[in-house]
Order: sequence, then C-alpha cells, then structure tokens
Amino acid sequence: MSKTYDVIIVGAGPAGLAAAIYAGRARLDTLILEKALPGGQILLTDWIENYPGFAEGVGTFSLMDAFRAQAERFGAKIEMDEIGDLRHGEGPLWMIVGREKTYQARTVIIATGSAHRHLEVPGEAELTGRGVSFCATCDGAFFRDKIVSVVGGGNWALTEALFLTKFARQVKLIHRRQGLRAEKILQERVWEHEKIELVLDTVVDTINGQDKLESLSLRNVKTEETWDEPMDGLFVSIGMIPNTGFLGSVLELNEWGEIMVKKKMATSQLGIYAAGDVTDACSNQVAIAAGAGVEAALAVDDYINNLD
Amino acid sequence: MSKTYDVIIVGAGPAGLAAAIYAGRARLDTLILEKALPGGQILLTDWIENYPGFAEGVGTFSLMDAFRAQAERFGAKIEMDEIGDLRHGEGPLWMIVGREKTYQARTVIIATGSAHRHLEVPGEAELTGRGVSFCATCDGAFFRDKIVSVVGGGNWALTEALFLTKFARQVKLIHRRQGLRAEKILQERVWEHEKIELVLDTVVDTINGQDKLESLSLRNVKTEETWDEPMDGLFVSIGMIPNTGFLGSVLELNEWGEIMVKKKMATSQLGIYAAGDVTDACSNQVAIAAGAGVEAALAVDDYINNLD
Repeated sequence: MSKTYDVIIVGAGPAGLAAAIYAGRARLDTLILEKALPGGQILLTDWIENYPGFAEGVGTFSLMDAFRAQAERFGAKIEMDEIGDLRHGEGPLWMIVGREKTYQARTVIIATGSAHRHLEVPGEAELTGRGVSFCATCDGAFFRDKIVSVVGGGNWALTEALFLTKFARQVKLIHRRQGLRAEKILQERVWEHEKIELVLDTVVDTINGQDKLESLSLRNVKTEETWDEPMDGLFVSIGMIPNTGFLGSVLELNEWGEIMVKKKMATSQLGIYAAGDVTDACSNQVAIAAGAGVEAALAVDDYINNLD
Repeated sequence: MSKTYDVIIVGAGPAGLAAAIYAGRARLDTLILEKALPGGQILLTDWIENYPGFAEGVGTFSLMDAFRAQAERFGAKIEMDEIGDLRHGEGPLWMIVGREKTYQARTVIIATGSAHRHLEVPGEAELTGRGVSFCATCDGAFFRDKIVSVVGGGNWALTEALFLTKFARQVKLIHRRQGLRAEKILQERVWEHEKIELVLDTVVDTINGQDKLESLSLRNVKTEETWDEPMDGLFVSIGMIPNTGFLGSVLELNEWGEIMVKKKMATSQLGIYAAGDVTDACSNQVAIAAGAGVEAALAVDDYINNLD
C-alpha cells in the first residue's frame, strides 16, 4: 500500500468509465478497479440503440471499449481486483481492501452497478442476448409483432409488460403466484390490456432454443401440469440486486440496498461518491449512468481542490 | 392548434435531443421546437474529447447531427420556432405560443439551455472557437504550454483559471475591478499560484487575430493606459444566462434564473419537466445534459401512463 491515489473508481461500467474520463482530464491520479471485464451489465445485450450520439445504434462491446480507451487515454489505469472492504484510512484517506491488494485514496467513486436477479433455470445463461433479455427499454423494439413473455409480478415486471405492448403482438405475463405485487393501477391496466395474457401460478422450468429462444417449458405450481409454449422473447423482471455487498455498513443504503446519493453524487461519507445503477438515482440506462459518472468526477475534483 | 402532442420538447441541444430519442422509443407523439439550428451551445466549440463513447474525440457538429438523426429515426419531429409563452391549456394540457404557431401538449420538457454572457467587444464573435472559448473543461487541453487569459472575477472565472494551470504555461486573470467576487479560498489559491498573474482594473477592448487569436487590446480603467498583450487563448467567464426569459412566472426559478428541478427532472408545475443547462442541476457538460434528458423523457412516459 505504497501509493495514494486521488480517486479510486470501483467498477468499470458506463458510470465508472465516464467518471474516469473526467477525472483523468482533471489531472487526478485515477485508478479503476474492476472485478471482471470493463463494460458492465450493458454487455448482456449485443446492440444499443438509445445511447445518444449513435444514430444507427452501436455494438455494446464497441461502445464500452471506446469508453475504456477514452479513460485510459486521459491517464486512468484499470486493474482487475474484487473489493472485499472499504474503510477509513489515515486522516481523510480511504482504504480499499481487494483480493489482490490493499489500496489507498483521497476519494472513492463507487460505480459497481447492479445485477439482474436471474431465474437460474437451464437455458437462461446460454440464450441471454438471443431472445432472453433483462430490459424491455433496451431490447423491446427488437420484438415488433412477436410473442414475448415477461416473468415477474412486481411494478417493474408489469411496466415492462405494458411497454412491450408497443411492439409485440402478444405479451404473456408469467407469475409464480395468483396475486401480483404491483400497484393496483398497473394491475388494472395489465388486466384490461387486450395484448396481455396473464399466466398465473406458473413458473418457467426450462428455456429452450439452439441459437435463439424457441420455447419455454412452463409448469403450473398448483396443478403440476407442464407444457411447452413457443416464444420469441423472454423478459426476466424479478428484481435487481445492487452490488453493495462489500460495503458493510459504511454507507447509507435504502431499503433495496441502493446507495443513497445527494446532489453531486455525494454519499453519507465525506470523500465517497457513487454513480450509476448502484445508486438510488439511476434507471438502468447507459446515458444516465454516464452523466452521473461525470457529475461524480466533477464533484471529486471540487472536493480535492478544497482539501489542498 | 389542431393537434395535441404527448410531449413537446423546447430546445434541440444535447438534453432535448436525448429526451426525444427516449420519448420516440416510448412511442410518444413528440415534437421538438428549436429557434435556430439543432445542436445547442456545444457547437461553439469544434471538437469534443470528453463525451463518453468516442475514444479519440468527435466533431461537435457530427455528434449533434447523430443525436438529431437518432431522435428523428424514432419518430420525433423538429420544427423551427421561437417560444414566446407557455401557459395552461384545457384541462391538464399545456399551450405553447410560438412566433409561427401555437402548440398544445400533454407534457413539456424545457431544454432551452443557457447562453454564455459575452464581452461584446470587436473580434469576440469572429474568433470564438479559434482561441476564444467559454469553457475551460471543454477546451483547456488544447492550450498545453500556451499563454491564456481568463476574463471574470467570480467563482467560475477563478475555477477556470485554476483548471487552466494544469495545461497552460501562464494564466492571466483579467478583471474589471480591483476586488474579486469569488470565494476567499479560491482567491487565496489564485493569488498564491505561481502560474497565475492578476491583471486588475482592466478590461478587454478588442480581441485581435486573423484566423486565430493573436492578441488582446487591454485598458486599465483607472489610469486609462492601453496596451496590446500577445495571447494564445481567451476564456470568457463572466456568467451564464439560462434561457428562461419566455417562461414568465410559470415555473419556480432560482436566483440565477435557472429552473429548479426535483428528482426525475420535475418542475414546480405538473406535466412540465426540464433538463440540461437551463436547470439548477447541470454543469455545462454534454454527458450530464444527455443523461438528464433521458431521465426527463422516462419521467414523462411515467406521467402520461398515469394520466391514461
């Protein structure tokens, strides 16, 4: 633990890399720690049409590779490590304990994102990006006039189902119970919508398909009846898990485990900022995460100028 | 005034066009009103290096043309008109009175941006983008080892001057009075900084240069002494003017005339949202404005779904 960075950014998704671009340009000594590969959750889908600046859309790998190259161009370094702990260091410094090393910095930007909760059934991993999606806003338009399913019973699942009616010919909402958890007004809309069919008391046992999704093996949990349902798209909407496990009780989180941020992406701890889907201020969109990353980096630069 | 739009976006800069991309994809009937050409303030500079996704930078015209094409691809229409008034229409509708026509919409996103206050001296308009800039974050890196000036005496001017010391060989801070308005701590840093020279009681009379900035004609307002000062870059930091003149007293503004936004870019009026530099939540950066535009469009879609 020889070196003290100006800022350590945890997570190399859109928020973290956008923050690094600005931190680098502000001449801050910047390290990004990423546990896997740079790019984040967006790489779960192949193509993005709604990141502003690419009229015809852009491959997600190519987009995130550009974010990375841009951050490195302005001096940010990326190291692969998984964070186990974040704690106070000497004076105003922060200490980050990774699997590989322990790091020290004047400020930290947490941009670890969130993970979609998975069904964890056979076929899900293999067909993700090939008919199985976790985001209707991202991928809905690919299913014009197709038949799609949404799995889930909460607000998010019903919102996804309603959104998908703009594109799909039919939307089946599959939920493991009889009752939905979503707000009544959403439920009314779903019940009344001619394109939406509810498939209740039902779970997905297997997701079938070779190169792309072909059908779902479903099971009614009350009758134990099973059947195969041909399907073009499956949207899994059973919740998000913000990646805040490593934080312990250092920062204030909301009831869903998201980091609560104030204006300028400040957290409850001086010197610690957060941006992107790990916070309570984001909506799973690359443009919003990138903007928040930029805000966090500008705030870090201000904070450091006031320390000096 | 035959037609009712789902959303009218006022202003076709980064915030407005990003909002339009998302509004279009949400299948909202979307109109953008722009008084001049799409693109916004960013077109004052030729090249942008800090918009995430373009590792080597991108021409601002090409970037904003992509924003525009992307918005149009998803169904947004752009019309040229200048807004004179925004007022309540029938029921929950809003009426926008333009020079050309009167428009009606269920929701409005105000993304009219802000304008840098100009010196309004000879040479300023001609040499903008050719040595004269309004944004050190945007253009500072082009002046590595050069001599630059900042005009202004407020927080923003001193912050710009301090930022420019990362690149420039020397920074002259020109201010028309003896006393600076900026916070004491910023003043202390500026006074102590070896690269910064203060040129007080002094105004810029003329900005000189053929294809690029060459020198400034300066005048001491106390002694009336005049002289020419060779110069590579000039940053004008005498304030921003949010473009909210047409709003009258419809929305709550802060003391600088910026629209005050809450979470999700809501304003003090139901159905009216705002995004980008016209609000109190932005920092003159394309990525932040674009993210805010996306947030506003998602909020509009939610609001309209709840109206139905």
